[in-house]
Amino acid sequence: MSQPRFHILGIGNAIVDVVSPVDESFLSRHDMHKGAMALIDSVTADKLYAAMPPAAETSGGSAANTCAVAAMMGAKVAYLGKVADDQLGRVFRHDIGAVGVHFPTAPLHGGAPTARCLIMVTPDGQRTMNTYLGACVTLGTADVDAALVADAAVTYLEGYLFDPPEAQAAFRKAAEAAHAAGRQVALSLSDAFCVHRHRAAFRELVEGHIDILFANETEITALYETNTFAEAAAWARRDVALAALTRSEAGSVIIQGAETVDVAAVPAEVIDTTGAGDAYAAGFLAGLTAGKSLAECGHLGSVAAAEVISHYGARPQGHLPSVA
Amino acid sequence: MSQPRFHILGIGNAIVDVVSPVDESFLSRHDMHKGAMALIDSVTADKLYAAMPPAAETSGGSAANTCAVAAMMGAKVAYLGKVADDQLGRVFRHDIGAVGVHFPTAPLHGGAPTARCLIMVTPDGQRTMNTYLGACVTLGTADVDAALVADAAVTYLEGYLFDPPEAQAAFRKAAEAAHAAGRQVALSLSDAFCVHRHRAAFRELVEGHIDILFANETEITALYETNTFAEAAAWARRDVALAALTRSEAGSVIIQGAETVDVAAVPAEVIDTTGAGDAYAAGFLAGLTAGKSLAECGHLGSVAAAEVISHYGARPQGHLPSVA
Repeated sequence: MSQPRFHILGIGNAIVDVVSPVDESFLSRHDMHKGAMALIDSVTADKLYAAMPPAAETSGGSAANTCAVAAMMGAKVAYLGKVADDQLGRVFRHDIGAVGVHFPTAPLHGGAPTARCLIMVTPDGQRTMNTYLGACVTLGTADVDAALVADAAVTYLEGYLFDPPEAQAAFRKAAEAAHAAGRQVALSLSDAFCVHRHRAAFRELVEGHIDILFANETEITALYETNTFAEAAAWARRDVALAALTRSEAGSVIIQGAETVDVAAVPAEVIDTTGAGDAYAAGFLAGLTAGKSLAECGHLGSVAAAEVISHYGARPQGHLPSVA
Repeated sequence: MSQPRFHILGIGNAIVDVVSPVDESFLSRHDMHKGAMALIDSVTADKLYAAMPPAAETSGGSAANTCAVAAMMGAKVAYLGKVADDQLGRVFRHDIGAVGVHFPTAPLHGGAPTARCLIMVTPDGQRTMNTYLGACVTLGTADVDAALVADAAVTYLEGYLFDPPEAQAAFRKAAEAAHAAGRQVALSLSDAFCVHRHRAAFRELVEGHIDILFANETEITALYETNTFAEAAAWARRDVALAALTRSEAGSVIIQGAETVDVAAVPAEVIDTTGAGDAYAAGFLAGLTAGKSLAECGHLGSVAAAEVISHYGARPQGHLPSVA
C-alpha cells in the first residue's frame, strides 16, 4: 500500500457559523434545548436571526473545523462539503483554504444559499445551535471522489451528515472506498439529538464500518441507550477498534482493544464551547496519523480543545503545537 | 426647540470587517503602513483576502461602530450608510438593528457589493486596515434626510466619509441641516492618512462647521501640521467648542473653551485595537447627550474603548454601563 497523500479527509456539512452571546432566558423564550443542535428551515432561520443580538460570522461545520485545526497542527488534510456560490460560501472557501486544506468540492449554483448555523452562547460557555442546511443538502455521491478517499489515511465523517438525506449515500460510498483502499474510517457522533434521529443507521454503521469513533458522554450513552458511561464504553470497546470518548473538564478516555488510556483535560477559561469536540478530534487524528502514542494523541486533542473554548468561534485564534 | 427623537445620528461608510491575526512580516510583505487605513480596489481586495489567514466577519464602519456602542449604552441612535442588497449587507443591517439603532438607508441594488475592510491584527494588538468601499461610494445627498438630522441632538460624521466623493456633499448637507435646526455636529478625524488626503477640506470644515471634534494624537497633529500634541491641542481649542483628544494608554484630554479635563485610560489586556476610537466617541457622546460632566463623558469613553480592545472585533461582546 502506497503512502497516502493526505493524513485526513473530512466529509461534512459546510456551514458558516453566526455566533452571538445571549442570556439563559433567550433559550427558553425560543424553546431551545441548551447544548443541542436543532435543524431549522429558512423561514425559521430568518426569524431567529432577526431576534438574535449582534453576531460574528466565522467558518464552521463540524468536520470542517476538525480539518482546519488538524491542518494548523501540521497534518495534510482534504475536505469535502457543499457551499453555494455566494458571499458566505466564499468566506468558507477562503478560511479552509487559508490553513492549507485541499477543498475540491464544486459550489452549488442557483440553488439554496450556503448553510448557516445560528449559535447562541450562554454565559456558562455552552453553545446551542440551530442549523439551516441550505446548500449542504445537495452533497451527494457525485461529490465523493473515490481516488481522493483512497489517498487519505483516515476518512473522517461527522454524524451530522446523516441529516441531509443525500449525504447518507455519500457517507457509505466514502466508507466503502476507504476500506477498499485499506484505509481507516473515523466517525464523530456529533450530537445526542442527531443520534436519536438516526440511531439504527448509526448502530449499523458503527458495528460494520467504523474503525475510529469519537463521541462525548451524552452521545455515546444515547447511541447505546444506556444510563452509564462505563456501560456505553464497554459497548464501544466491542464495536470499534479505537474509540476516543470525551467528558468535558473530566478529560477523555481512549479505548483500544483491552487497553484504556485516561487523558486529562487541559485547563482553560471557558468562553464558548463551540467546536471543542471538533478540535479534540483534530488533535487526536493529527497525532495518530503522525504515529504518536494514544496518550499523546489524547493530549493533543485536549490542547486543541482548550484553545478553541477560550474565545468565541470554533476555529483557533492562537498558537497550536505541530505534529509535523 | 423641541426635544430631539435621537441623541446621536451617525453618518459613515457602512462596512463589514474581515479580521485576521497576522505576524509583523505579513504587513511588510504586503507594503502596509502599520496602524493605518488604506483604500483598495476590488482586484486588490480579492488578492489580499486570498493571502490572509482565516478570518472572522463582523459588522464595522467607524461611525456605525460608534452608533452601535452608544445604543448599547442606552442612547437613542440613528445611522445612515450604504450597504448592498447582499449577504454581507444583511449581516450589517442585522447587527446594527439588533442593538436598536434606527437604520433607514435603502440598500444598493445591482451595483457594487457591500464594503469590506480587511483588518490585519498584529500580536501587539495594533490593527492595519485595507478598505474596499464598494456600495459606500453611492451614499449621497439623497440619503440624508434633513428632518432626521434635525431630530438628533448630535450628528456624528466620520472623517473616512471624505474618501467616497459623493459623501462629501452628503457630509455638508447634514452639517447644514443640523445647524439650521440648532443641533450640534461632531466629527472624528478617523486616520492620519485620511487627514493628509483631505487636509484643506478638513481644516475648512473644522473651523467653520464642527462643534465637537474627536481625534487621536497622530490625527490632530496631522490636521494642524505640528509636531507637538500641545500645539495641536491649542489649535483645536481655538477651532471647536469641544474637543476630545485620545492618547491610547495615556488616556484622553478634553478641551472646552478655557477648560481642560485629563481623563485616565481604563486598563485592559490589548488583543485588537480595532474600534477603540469609535468606542471612545460612543461613550463620550452617550454621556454628553445624557447630560453628564466632561470628566464622566471621558470616563465612559475610556470604559467602552477598554471593552472593545480586549477581544477581536470592533463591537462590544461584554457588558457596558448604561447612561439611560
